Amino acid sequence: MELSQRITRMIGKGGDGWDLFFKARAMADVGQPVVELTIGEHDIRTDPRILAAMDRAARGGHTGYAMMSGTDDLRDAVAARVQARTGVPTARENVLITPGGQSGLFAAHHAVCDDGDRALFIDPYYATYPGTIRAIGAQAVPVQARAEDAFQPRADDLAAAAPGAKSLLVNTPNNPTGAVYSRATLDGITRVCQKHDLWLISDEVYDTQVWDGAHLSPRALPGMAERTLVVGSMSKSHAMTGSRIGWLVGPRRAIAHLASLAIHTTYGVPGFIQDAALFALNEGPALEQEIAAPFARRRAIAMDILGRQNAIRALPPQGAMYMMLDIRATGLSGLDFAERLLAQHMIAVMPGESFGQAPAGHIRVALTVADARFAEAFQTLVDMASELAT
Amino acid sequence: MELSQRITRMIGKGGDGWDLFFKARAMADVGQPVVELTIGEHDIRTDPRILAAMDRAARGGHTGYAMMSGTDDLRDAVAARVQARTGVPTARENVLITPGGQSGLFAAHHAVCDDGDRALFIDPYYATYPGTIRAIGAQAVPVQARAEDAFQPRADDLAAAAPGAKSLLVNTPNNPTGAVYSRATLDGITRVCQKHDLWLISDEVYDTQVWDGAHLSPRALPGMAERTLVVGSMSKSHAMTGSRIGWLVGPRRAIAHLASLAIHTTYGVPGFIQDAALFALNEGPALEQEIAAPFARRRAIAMDILGRQNAIRALPPQGAMYMMLDIRATGLSGLDFAERLLAQHMIAVMPGESFGQAPAGHIRVALTVADARFAEAFQTLVDMASELAT
Repeated sequence: MELSQRITRMIGKGGDGWDLFFKARAMADVGQPVVELTIGEHDIRTDPRILAAMDRAARGGHTGYAMMSGTDDLRDAVAARVQARTGVPTARENVLITPGGQSGLFAAHHAVCDDGDRALFIDPYYATYPGTIRAIGAQAVPVQARAEDAFQPRADDLAAAAPGAKSLLVNTPNNPTGAVYSRATLDGITRVCQKHDLWLISDEVYDTQVWDGAHLSPRALPGMAERTLVVGSMSKSHAMTGSRIGWLVGPRRAIAHLASLAIHTTYGVPGFIQDAALFALNEGPALEQEIAAPFARRRAIAMDILGRQNAIRALPPQGAMYMMLDIRATGLSGLDFAERLLAQHMIAVMPGESFGQAPAGHIRVALTVADARFAEAFQTLVDMASELAT
Repeated sequence: MELSQRITRMIGKGGDGWDLFFKARAMADVGQPVVELTIGEHDIRTDPRILAAMDRAARGGHTGYAMMSGTDDLRDAVAARVQARTGVPTARENVLITPGGQSGLFAAHHAVCDDGDRALFIDPYYATYPGTIRAIGAQAVPVQARAEDAFQPRADDLAAAAPGAKSLLVNTPNNPTGAVYSRATLDGITRVCQKHDLWLISDEVYDTQVWDGAHLSPRALPGMAERTLVVGSMSKSHAMTGSRIGWLVGPRRAIAHLASLAIHTTYGVPGFIQDAALFALNEGPALEQEIAAPFARRRAIAMDILGRQNAIRALPPQGAMYMMLDIRATGLSGLDFAERLLAQHMIAVMPGESFGQAPAGHIRVALTVADARFAEAFQTLVDMASELAT
């Protein structure tokens, strides 16, 4: 039986470097002491206070169908949070609760692109971006952000790809590079979106994890609120990855249509999870800072180690949970370096090549194991690079 | 800013009778004593034992990203359940865990239909069916099952619509009609699917709620396992509507592609909800029967009342949580009858017209309030019909 072209073409051809992730996971599963610096999973679990709130809501009876767009209370809380952080007037009707950020990414593209439309995204990219665009039948068109520009995309490169496109997907703070887009970068993005009448889909799931400078939401730039769909999530900010809860923020008419789409795709988000998320948001910035703090500490550990060597070049990550390291001085590709590191030292990192063409010759290191173990592994990694480079 | 055609065309034009549902809900919200016999929401909450299992899983640490296709244990439990109930060999690789049945319906159509393809569904239909098909950009083509055939679709009608189609969506036990498809009906469906090379998408979310005869899964018919995607759910069988957990069962290759789609749409299902579902399935048929029993009782109450009048014609519902009543003898449309019933007696039912053209002149009554209150409301409904018919 034939499957749809959309689903069979969703995944690109050939290896994508995730083989290494699965190899490391398989080694860990049989008890080998692999240090996993691969994916953006916190080394802590969801806070017991949040889980207690979830249990209270469930036992209190919030186990039937919930409001399809999200509960009024949670939508109001998200709207207030977004307005406070960005200054953009935001009401309940601008917010749709989604079962996680990925669901929001899919729904946002669904809402603005038809079959065959051009949808732009920035390379290096989060692993699901091109597949998400292809899943809705659109053309996934990468625009490279260059290593020499600290992975900030150039307006000229965006403008060259923009004619005929419907949307541009950006992510700041950025996974996998750790870049936080500057005002100049965002001004360039704004100009291109307005000139070419693009929707901007702005993935801001790392907005509470900024180490250097400040997060600026492109929706807050002049004229952008009407053409921007912001993807938000509790996964990273509140260590709730497994709870699958996030949101889309955008113009009222778009959100109303996205609520209809939710009826036909997800049928809403569990009410007890929404209540848990509301509890977590009401805890305010203190909880977010508590969850972000370990990544700031490990970033400092890594920068300290990098300061004592010359083999690896790295820009200090400005945000998110990752560092992108330039290991070209070793003469190895990112993939070869990562494979050797796993084989020789049981340390798993992601090859830059997993995230596009722009980060070839790089590796991505997630700041997601306990400080002492992270320091030891990072030193080992740097030592291996130094030996190779000499 | 323009939205995609897919999303703006998803909802059909004009009123669809759901205005009445929202009007009744609004009346209830301001404290009016509306008897809501509208949607398929149990009048009980999720069992506290299931919620305790969820809390144990969450506090035990199952709060990170879960396996994208579902946990091995839950996939195995679903496979064993399906194999035991249908006799069709079913392994873990035939099962994808989804965030609810609606998500499964969407994903199944996504996997087999491309933009513009013809996708058949039976009228009367569950409210989301045509929108789900249009959401993936396919043509939603209704095939009427006739009231005089007890809403069992005819093979000839299916064959007439089948040329050029990619898929056929059926639902047995059926919402909104309460029909359970006979072996003869399923044989007809099988012949049409095989002759026209259609995928069969079989929505079986009411499979534990059969009052007369037995549920037969069309996947169990000769040659059908290779072309059938079964949609299952814990919502109705275990009163877990708000937990959003269900599954797709189908050929291994299709399930593998659907797992890739899940990465790009839902990013999996919360692990603690999967653990709660596993606990619930492991409770076995006793729990399912406990949850189904009230609907059987209320069906008997309704049949008893109907036996003492002539204004309403009704086939005894064979399964699911609803009765479809023929109120044409009153001279009113289903919509007019439902509006009058709400205005005069504060009893809310769904107009048949909400579910397609075939059930015009009918109303759907959900068996979802406590027995005594149900009996009183149903008697009032029948009395109103009797007065109108004379």
